[in-house]
Amino acid sequence: MNFASDNTSGAHPKVLQALSQADAGSAMSYGHDPVTDRAQARLRAVFEHAHLLAYPVATGTATNALTLACLTPPWGAVYCHRESHINTDECGAPEMFADGAKLIPLAGEHGKLTPEAVEAALADYTPGFVHAVQPHVLALTQATEAGTVYTPDEVAALARVAHAHGLKVQMDGARFANALVTLGCTPAELTWKAGVDVLSFGATKNGALAAEAAVFFDPELARGFEYRRKRAGHLFSKMRYISAQLEAYLADDVWLLNAGHANDLARRLGDGLDALPGCALVHPVQANEVFCELPVSVADALSAEGFTFYYWGGGDSGSARVTARLVVSWNSEPGHVDALLNAAGRHAAQAA
Amino acid sequence: MNFASDNTSGAHPKVLQALSQADAGSAMSYGHDPVTDRAQARLRAVFEHAHLLAYPVATGTATNALTLACLTPPWGAVYCHRESHINTDECGAPEMFADGAKLIPLAGEHGKLTPEAVEAALADYTPGFVHAVQPHVLALTQATEAGTVYTPDEVAALARVAHAHGLKVQMDGARFANALVTLGCTPAELTWKAGVDVLSFGATKNGALAAEAAVFFDPELARGFEYRRKRAGHLFSKMRYISAQLEAYLADDVWLLNAGHANDLARRLGDGLDALPGCALVHPVQANEVFCELPVSVADALSAEGFTFYYWGGGDSGSARVTARLVVSWNSEPGHVDALLNAAGRHAAQAA
Amino acid sequence: MNFASDNTSGAHPKVLQALSQADAGSAMSYGHDPVTDRAQARLRAVFEHAHLLAYPVATGTATNALTLACLTPPWGAVYCHRESHINTDECGAPEMFADGAKLIPLAGEHGKLTPEAVEAALADYTPGFVHAVQPHVLALTQATEAGTVYTPDEVAALARVAHAHGLKVQMDGARFANALVTLGCTPAELTWKAGVDVLSFGATKNGALAAEAAVFFDPELARGFEYRRKRAGHLFSKMRYISAQLEAYLADDVWLLNAGHANDLARRLGDGLDALPGCALVHPVQANEVFCELPVSVADALSAEGFTFYYWGGGDSGSARVTARLVVSWNSEPGHVDALLNAAGRHAAQAA
Amino acid sequence: MNFASDNTSGAHPKVLQALSQADAGSAMSYGHDPVTDRAQARLRAVFEHAHLLAYPVATGTATNALTLACLTPPWGAVYCHRESHINTDECGAPEMFADGAKLIPLAGEHGKLTPEAVEAALADYTPGFVHAVQPHVLALTQATEAGTVYTPDEVAALARVAHAHGLKVQMDGARFANALVTLGCTPAELTWKAGVDVLSFGATKNGALAAEAAVFFDPELARGFEYRRKRAGHLFSKMRYISAQLEAYLADDVWLLNAGHANDLARRLGDGLDALPGCALVHPVQANEVFCELPVSVADALSAEGFTFYYWGGGDSGSARVTARLVVSWNSEPGHVDALLNAAGRHAAQAA
Repeated sequence: MNFASDNTSGAHPKVLQALSQADAGSAMSYGHDPVTDRAQARLRAVFEHAHLLAYPVATGTATNALTLACLTPPWGAVYCHRESHINTDECGAPEMFADGAKLIPLAGEHGKLTPEAVEAALADYTPGFVHAVQPHVLALTQATEAGTVYTPDEVAALARVAHAHGLKVQMDGARFANALVTLGCTPAELTWKAGVDVLSFGATKNGALAAEAAVFFDPELARGFEYRRKRAGHLFSKMRYISAQLEAYLADDVWLLNAGHANDLARRLGDGLDALPGCALVHPVQANEVFCELPVSVADALSAEGFTFYYWGGGDSGSARVTARLVVSWNSEPGHVDALLNAAGRHAAQAA
Repeated sequence: MNFASDNTSGAHPKVLQALSQADAGSAMSYGHDPVTDRAQARLRAVFEHAHLLAYPVATGTATNALTLACLTPPWGAVYCHRESHINTDECGAPEMFADGAKLIPLAGEHGKLTPEAVEAALADYTPGFVHAVQPHVLALTQATEAGTVYTPDEVAALARVAHAHGLKVQMDGARFANALVTLGCTPAELTWKAGVDVLSFGATKNGALAAEAAVFFDPELARGFEYRRKRAGHLFSKMRYISAQLEAYLADDVWLLNAGHANDLARRLGDGLDALPGCALVHPVQANEVFCELPVSVADALSAEGFTFYYWGGGDSGSARVTARLVVSWNSEPGHVDALLNAAGRHAAQAA
Repeated sequence: MNFASDNTSGAHPKVLQALSQADAGSAMSYGHDPVTDRAQARLRAVFEHAHLLAYPVATGTATNALTLACLTPPWGAVYCHRESHINTDECGAPEMFADGAKLIPLAGEHGKLTPEAVEAALADYTPGFVHAVQPHVLALTQATEAGTVYTPDEVAALARVAHAHGLKVQMDGARFANALVTLGCTPAELTWKAGVDVLSFGATKNGALAAEAAVFFDPELARGFEYRRKRAGHLFSKMRYISAQLEAYLADDVWLLNAGHANDLARRLGDGLDALPGCALVHPVQANEVFCELPVSVADALSAEGFTFYYWGGGDSGSARVTARLVVSWNSEPGHVDALLNAAGRHAAQAA
Repeated sequence: MNFASDNTSGAHPKVLQALSQADAGSAMSYGHDPVTDRAQARLRAVFEHAHLLAYPVATGTATNALTLACLTPPWGAVYCHRESHINTDECGAPEMFADGAKLIPLAGEHGKLTPEAVEAALADYTPGFVHAVQPHVLALTQATEAGTVYTPDEVAALARVAHAHGLKVQMDGARFANALVTLGCTPAELTWKAGVDVLSFGATKNGALAAEAAVFFDPELARGFEYRRKRAGHLFSKMRYISAQLEAYLADDVWLLNAGHANDLARRLGDGLDALPGCALVHPVQANEVFCELPVSVADALSAEGFTFYYWGGGDSGSARVTARLVVSWNSEPGHVDALLNAAGRHAAQAA
């Protein structure tokens, strides 16, 4: 029973089916096909933004790196949470794509940046001072790596600080759907209406095979994107197969239903674990990830029983407690969550 | 009726089907899954090489750029044909991935390099001379951009020159299957037995959705590949969907049957065109591409009738003749070829 | 009276004189000249290391960036103090030269890293985990940006941690002479005997016009350096003029006398300021820099009287106190120090 | 007697003297000093252009790479002569500084590009076609690597082609003074009045120690230059020492007298060699370089007598003839030229 990551799950049947439908007949390559046009049209409708530009990309790391590279020169700085995916899990992709631009890691509770922290960090810089990289981008993650979410108001407050200093706001939305469902707002309210300039819109983790979209709410900012995508080897010749995934993902509320399912189970899992003796949530559960501190003996016993999840810091030799990260997928089975809770209950009682 | 490119075709049914099969259940991400293991095993069997390392990649440009970056430092030079895909159609991807390394374009008839031309180009360089980039790679294309092929002996002769000067040999095999079928040799004879060190093995054009493999015959040369792939955004979280395409592509002779079909039709198309008045092949037809010089009026008439293909040079205002590039796909219909030949025959007769 | 930086001072007369001597006659370019040979020989003698390789470079930023690039692949990480010059004052030069490698900023009192902090940071990383940049370099600054020094034992303890994890140790020695004089040890004891692998040896701030040296104690590590230097535009055609500065700088104890003079005056300045009411040193004065917190009114009054220095953080509107950074040069006049102390005394008394 | 290169010569006495003068007192660093202001002012006067921006840089390779990087994005192309310094002698510096942009090498007699060749090369590209790098710069060299010059009319004709296609014109003026003296026109006529947008203005070869200037006739194009210079390690802290060289070089006609001396001797050398039996100039002598084809036996005999020069192609084992490159410097002695001519005369007579 796999709680290692939401990318261990497969693809939604409707997404798979869309591949076969896209397959019929020949189509011009490199995105000059009707499926790609329709995917953009659907994103425009979903985000209530008639002029956004949306480019299908196959991986989240590429989408992040490509969009960031459009927003900063090589001597620019990207302000981000120190635990953000772009800072810790992309092996320097943003630096590579942005020709050596610098990420400035900032601290913040529960994976979230605050306007105060960003303001303080920006105060260190002198505009035009050629000895230091210059602030160009504020990068947010929604939902965050800690499984928490920013409200539209929080996004807006952060964007105000960023824009006041001339920065653009990029959002890593690898788990955008999960955040959206939790917050109950519209996609527009969570992005451009709150000041987000560019969104890295994720579908892979939430039911696609390999599909994301780089969404530019201001078409001006997309300048150079197409050349960057090509020279990064991310312009797919048979693009329709990426686009078709996006189209199916956004149709029939597939994306929202998937995210809702995962979020519900995650909350059930989090509540259950939090109630056990010696177990405590590390972050509030606001999306599809659960971070729970628990006795090492309990974690080890769960692993031994075949539950797969990551030990997320802690657990050094000598320490008696560890943080477990458990991720629930769009197709995780409720029975698996219950099985894990039962087992954890047993082991926690023993450990207590 | 589309002769624009082999990447306008869809995917082979067995490849599509393999996606659904790979979909069952959860699997560890980033290539730690059994499908990916099996894909590599199959490539080892196909190439009769028990120790090769094969990494699934989704696009040909990425595969070329990633493999080249493993073979040259930033101050290195890649010798290639001046019409090669890496030099003209990848928007500088090799330069980006190899951190500014330089491509040295060489001339050669019918898209092919000769040992003499490579030897002559290498004579210009002084080993250790820090003012000039240093030769590190000879890059070949098989089949070439001109639709021609290198025999195993020709590859071996080129590789001997390269190795004698300390260069490694990379082969862009976007149309490797087409060359193989034409030559009737084994994959091993056409690659490592002839001195190829790294192969960019293509499947996309010949029946996959988006799947290639970076194949290192010397595992030492793959050092750094996995970091490079990740930081380029080309490590797919749900890797099994790329690997499954490769597995199905290599099973049941799908790849060879596809290539054989395309090659046969291309030859039929080439022979037919060459026999028409005022029409003449520009290159011998040795794979699935036909380059034919013909009157502009004929080309325009064909376009007007709905045949899609590229005007490949020539055709400037004033010139009466143009070179047409016509590409046949794994699933092109014989009837389309015949229809084009009939139409061309009519127009050519009129023009004569 | 200028306390803004040691790079506002001119060049030592013997260094200037050496330029004229180097000028006689023609000499082969790009370092193939006897002056460059002699400069390396002198560095070998000074560092008691017969096999070190020393390359003249004209700026400290270039020397740092070039040496770091030799020690890390693009997917590598350089651990450094968060206030280090490479992290805050080189506009991303290390990232540019190392093709996008990442600096990992660490905290530490008085500008110094501790073995514990480095060990803790390295504990976050999993060797071979392709999602994260891999640790390759520990970068130290000697003297630090806070005007403090590492003892040979401290360097050795840090190097042990670094080497235990497979990292190389690079030292930014822009103010190496100042540290050396303070510590009273030999150049060898402060570098390779303590585990430093590569030294960025500075002369510019301490009496040269523009001269540094990249010093590799392990010649293996210099692999690629000469190509990197050339392609960065840092291979000087008339190299002898850089080398001559280094030769003169190291002759007749010029470098040590210069540093000793600056250090002595800095200590006098630091002691004097520290004794004033409302004034307090922020860091111990161990080289030629003084960081002193004092009332804004005092700082402003000194500025108004023509003393030039930097407000180093603090001093925000509203705050009554500020940190002043005052740097003493190899040729600063004792009278200027006394004048500043007198003036500060007057103003501090008023403010008290 | 050294004819290897003009960078084997030393510095003009007035340039050396200027260093001592610049040395007096302290000065703000990084170019915020009066000497640097005066150097720019002098360049504005010399080029009759009140608004040009001029930045001192220490090497020609850096000046070329920095200026090119300001004119092209990473996916851009720089059209240049295939024998140009940027293409053959900078170890990929332009590619490094411009983040992987591509140089397109073009042929042309006597080291010169023609409008026709540039026009033909540009015809290969389709604007906006994302698969290929896009033309952004035409790079000229004045005087060329073949020791020839472009007239103002020739520059203007080339610039017209470039501008018509949206390219900017960069000029590598490492030997700009030599060209200027030959042509007898004004600096303005040879640059911005003829359509040159950015000039890499050289002084090092013609009497400085290490000084060039990046000259932007359109200040808009300098956007980003200062950050690029810093992050490339080319912002000198004690900038006044570079600026002082430029100031002295441009004063009292030092630069023109130096170039005139070298040109006159080169012509004498060229005429003399051309008149010898079996010797023939390869290029017209229009600056300070002489390319002469002669019997290998003559070249070898001259080398054996202590004349230093480069064998420039040819001279393979088996070939009886070789091309010698002989470069005359600003301070070459007429007696050395005569000595070489006498010796060559003797050997040529024997060989005939």
